[in-house]
Amino acid sequence: MHLSEITHPNQLHGLSVRQLQQIARQIRDKHLQTVAVNGGHLGPGLGVVELTLGLYQTLDLDRDKVIWDVGHQAYPHKLLTGRYDRFHTLRQKDGVAGYLKRCENKFDHFGAGHASTSISAALGMALARDLKGEKFKAVAVIGDGALTGGMALEAINHAGHLPKTNLLVVLNDNEMSISPNVGAIPRYLNKMRLSPPVQFIKDNFEEQFKQIPFVGESLSPELGRIKEGMKRLAVPKVGAVFEELGFTYIGPVDGHNIEELIATFQQAHQIPGPVLVHVATVKGKGYEIAEQDQVGYHAQSPFNLTTGKAIPSSKPKPPAYAKVFAHTLVKLAEQNPKIIGITAAMATGTGLDKLQAKLPNQYIDVGIAEQHAVTLAAGLAAEGMRPIAAIYSTFLQRAYDQIIHDVCIQNLPVFFCLDRAGIVGADGPTHQGMYDIAYLRCIPNMVVMAPKDEAELQRMMVTGVNHTSGPIAMRYPRGNGYGVPLMEEGWEPLEIGKGEILRTGDDVLIVSYGTMVNPGMQAAEILSEHGIEATVINARFAKPLDTELILPLAKKIGRVVTLEEGCVMGGFGSVIAEALLDADILVPVKRFGVPDILVDHAEPNESKTELGLTSHQIAERVLEAFFKKQVSAVV
Amino acid sequence: MHLSEITHPNQLHGLSVRQLQQIARQIRDKHLQTVAVNGGHLGPGLGVVELTLGLYQTLDLDRDKVIWDVGHQAYPHKLLTGRYDRFHTLRQKDGVAGYLKRCENKFDHFGAGHASTSISAALGMALARDLKGEKFKAVAVIGDGALTGGMALEAINHAGHLPKTNLLVVLNDNEMSISPNVGAIPRYLNKMRLSPPVQFIKDNFEEQFKQIPFVGESLSPELGRIKEGMKRLAVPKVGAVFEELGFTYIGPVDGHNIEELIATFQQAHQIPGPVLVHVATVKGKGYEIAEQDQVGYHAQSPFNLTTGKAIPSSKPKPPAYAKVFAHTLVKLAEQNPKIIGITAAMATGTGLDKLQAKLPNQYIDVGIAEQHAVTLAAGLAAEGMRPIAAIYSTFLQRAYDQIIHDVCIQNLPVFFCLDRAGIVGADGPTHQGMYDIAYLRCIPNMVVMAPKDEAELQRMMVTGVNHTSGPIAMRYPRGNGYGVPLMEEGWEPLEIGKGEILRTGDDVLIVSYGTMVNPGMQAAEILSEHGIEATVINARFAKPLDTELILPLAKKIGRVVTLEEGCVMGGFGSVIAEALLDADILVPVKRFGVPDILVDHAEPNESKTELGLTSHQIAERVLEAFFKKQVSAVV
Repeated sequence: MHLSEITHPNQLHGLSVRQLQQIARQIRDKHLQTVAVNGGHLGPGLGVVELTLGLYQTLDLDRDKVIWDVGHQAYPHKLLTGRYDRFHTLRQKDGVAGYLKRCENKFDHFGAGHASTSISAALGMALARDLKGEKFKAVAVIGDGALTGGMALEAINHAGHLPKTNLLVVLNDNEMSISPNVGAIPRYLNKMRLSPPVQFIKDNFEEQFKQIPFVGESLSPELGRIKEGMKRLAVPKVGAVFEELGFTYIGPVDGHNIEELIATFQQAHQIPGPVLVHVATVKGKGYEIAEQDQVGYHAQSPFNLTTGKAIPSSKPKPPAYAKVFAHTLVKLAEQNPKIIGITAAMATGTGLDKLQAKLPNQYIDVGIAEQHAVTLAAGLAAEGMRPIAAIYSTFLQRAYDQIIHDVCIQNLPVFFCLDRAGIVGADGPTHQGMYDIAYLRCIPNMVVMAPKDEAELQRMMVTGVNHTSGPIAMRYPRGNGYGVPLMEEGWEPLEIGKGEILRTGDDVLIVSYGTMVNPGMQAAEILSEHGIEATVINARFAKPLDTELILPLAKKIGRVVTLEEGCVMGGFGSVIAEALLDADILVPVKRFGVPDILVDHAEPNESKTELGLTSHQIAERVLEAFFKKQVSAVV
Repeated sequence: MHLSEITHPNQLHGLSVRQLQQIARQIRDKHLQTVAVNGGHLGPGLGVVELTLGLYQTLDLDRDKVIWDVGHQAYPHKLLTGRYDRFHTLRQKDGVAGYLKRCENKFDHFGAGHASTSISAALGMALARDLKGEKFKAVAVIGDGALTGGMALEAINHAGHLPKTNLLVVLNDNEMSISPNVGAIPRYLNKMRLSPPVQFIKDNFEEQFKQIPFVGESLSPELGRIKEGMKRLAVPKVGAVFEELGFTYIGPVDGHNIEELIATFQQAHQIPGPVLVHVATVKGKGYEIAEQDQVGYHAQSPFNLTTGKAIPSSKPKPPAYAKVFAHTLVKLAEQNPKIIGITAAMATGTGLDKLQAKLPNQYIDVGIAEQHAVTLAAGLAAEGMRPIAAIYSTFLQRAYDQIIHDVCIQNLPVFFCLDRAGIVGADGPTHQGMYDIAYLRCIPNMVVMAPKDEAELQRMMVTGVNHTSGPIAMRYPRGNGYGVPLMEEGWEPLEIGKGEILRTGDDVLIVSYGTMVNPGMQAAEILSEHGIEATVINARFAKPLDTELILPLAKKIGRVVTLEEGCVMGGFGSVIAEALLDADILVPVKRFGVPDILVDHAEPNESKTELGLTSHQIAERVLEAFFKKQVSAVV
């Protein structure tokens, strides 16, 4: 049987280990070929090919439910559940998603994108099952990195307390998050990986016993009598933490030995209550280049399969925001030893790996632990340090209470740098950075800002570091800047709450925020071609808003457009609406931004077009709304 | 020395154990007397009197920093740090706060109110200390309940990975959250409490060894030889989980034996790296009534010290919202076995203890673990159950990403019931439920509603349970309803997104939300006395907004007032502002709500007056703003 013939995972049931190994090869080939062309996650999926096959061999997937944590490790799962034919559309608009979505496939029982959710979801399903009197297996597959996330530990605490609730947690231990793991839990797992498996100890206790110091070879009858006692003491050592927390621990198991995996999972299914199977996998397994560089090949842009090298883009691009951020952070940190960059397991994504390389003492990776990251930053700030919490917009949602409770209520000067704010492209709904303006601006003491380009990002970093009177947040997008000259010298902080006028005109006032400043300027140019002259403001700050600058212009011009790359519900446009009404300035306002929908995965420009956020679309809609001009005249 | 003479905790240093015991008694007396009069937290503070004294005896508090988790266990700390004289103002406006605030006292190094933050904060301070080359001890005191919160576990994972960073975690193990603890971690701690302390095992190994099965009394030389080997196996059993996670574990220690506590803390201070001292305390210690009813005396309204009975309020009050919620939940759950009530360690506060008593199978307490609670609910919903996540507005901030990522993106029908939304009174800034309208309404798929009184709360509960197409949230306040007749029969769900007109008038449109509907009606009456007739709308839904009802009236009447008990930044008034501008209705809008400040602890009515939210103040401001009438005419 070829992988392409498998449309239902239960088709695996009849296959021999040898046949499964063939399927494994086919999965790896398809996985590699697809990601090499489309880009996407590589290492996580390659590492769980055998785990997936072994697990599915022991399940009836018409009934049993597997919840894959994060979802980027679920490519083999996708290939076994009827998506082989469409897999070449991976991460493309209307194609197979890069993460998991319930609506995509009936075997995707719970969507994911962020880490550490699977045990909670699987436990919820297991409890529902038991209440409904149904019979199926609920399985969570979670990585060792995701296991350091607080909510996974909360779920383990709860599940370990329910001895009557059957739940299987498969720990996919590849010793990595995106970067090497942080923390005592991963170190503990690593220690276990180096231990013989529990099964082995049990079966070969005699052998093990002899190796205990002072015992040696002399197994007298007397010693034989206490063997059992010692056995009880010795066995829990591997997996003791999980056993103490109420789980039956099995492992470690070789995650690339299908036969051993099948036997282990079959054994695990016989055990009542919560069971944890510890599977030792190799990230990037089967593609040597990825095995050698596990950080680099966690995810990849399109690359040459033979060399492993990224396919260079046809024309040189301006530097990515993240790169400018990292470069600037290192410069600032060199000048100010109080600056501490904090990442939650996203060293490469945020660019903080550059800080680590240059100034390791001013760098902290806390692992997948955004809540802890933010309160740790608050603790550092309370001691006079300048913590910079570099956390993607979407992941900062994890630390919302910590932002309110530990940072803003105490007015501590933590500088939040929110990468991937706005439309993120191929990662899809779970990763869109849509809500940060709305969820941050409602908190007292918080300053909320966004740069119009990569040079202003630098300026705002200086501003953030200089803002020692309270918390401040800066959002910036995924992707590349505009190639504007970077400011290398004489950096001055911006005045908090002050915007700038970029262009003047008497017909319409365009108030733009962050990444929408340049489209706003372009829209103004298009409007000008149609005889409409716009004033364009770069607001810079959503909070505090530069009402001194904006309100008189709004009143004078009498037509306002707001532009933002974020949710319009409570977002930047709403800030302007509030300010105008509070000042009794009654002028029409058109708010452009992301409407109240989920934005699916696509190229960022495809998404922007679909959302009506290109400069042409903005100009069109302004002409139509304010000047009753024909739309067709513009396009 | 009397407690009243202590203004600096270092004054304890010269005192004997006997003298400290006297101080302990004085702390308990003052604590009990104050809470009996003012109300407040009782059990937590009484349980840590000796812990506080013993710890402070071993610290130099001019340098060393103690971070108290939650803060409700810090009353003894407050009494030892210069607040004895003012302690009678506990939880009163401008008085001593019920939780911890950095601005209140120089020994309050990190504010708190929510659980599980202390280890992160203390670790941040410890890292800052080492980077600055300073020398002081960083100590976190955390309860066993708070230890089940994910962020505390994230912090332990991180701290256990930093063997060179000195950090002392004092585990105040009273075997309780507010209610008995949930989970495998508390069970594990309990097991350790029943074990002899580590020190004891080490010192008395001979004795212990004899008790191992099959060993008995016969300690032959051969057995003696392997004693050491077994010792290595046996010793880590107590505290093994913490030891495996990189901490040096010491304990359990009797938390009411000052001498033992001092000796233990002194020992702990000698050990480098992260150290955990496990202190076994009794919640409510020294006040027998509280020791016997630890749930009831976690916190108390004013009570009679002799009988322990709450002092009845002078006049009978209408039922509390929480009570009506609990009563209704039980009724609905009886009719619908798919309803599952979920609490994160707030069974009594939310009223879910009633559900537990009546329908234990439809009740889940996950412990202090809001993140897990929400994703567990999502898992239940994915299996067709009707989970009701009953979480205070302020605590739901902890699960913000789970609301977005696991519930709303997947459009799963979880019903969020947010008690304590709005002004909470004596608990202060950390507990104010100000942000939920803003932080929930920006998420796609979420329905956001609030009842005007306790009968409408019942109606909305029916609505929420019937809303099976996606997530829905209901906010309701702390405190009592209006005594309106409850609906016991024939409950019909409300139509989603539909408000109601309560009063008509042509001069001003008052759009009210939730708890502000009644003040809105009262304001309308006052306005009427001044010749101004208002239309009053009970919006019911902040999302979706009833634009069909509201917009034509706004256009016709031409003056709009919005009322809400939540942040005006992005809140309900902002919803109205957005809707009006989106519909090109340019009319003046006055938004009443909580301005962009932190609201301190006070009586709710005191806070409302200070914020200008009483019906008289609203009427005044409306008259002045829209009708230029003298303010003095109203008061």
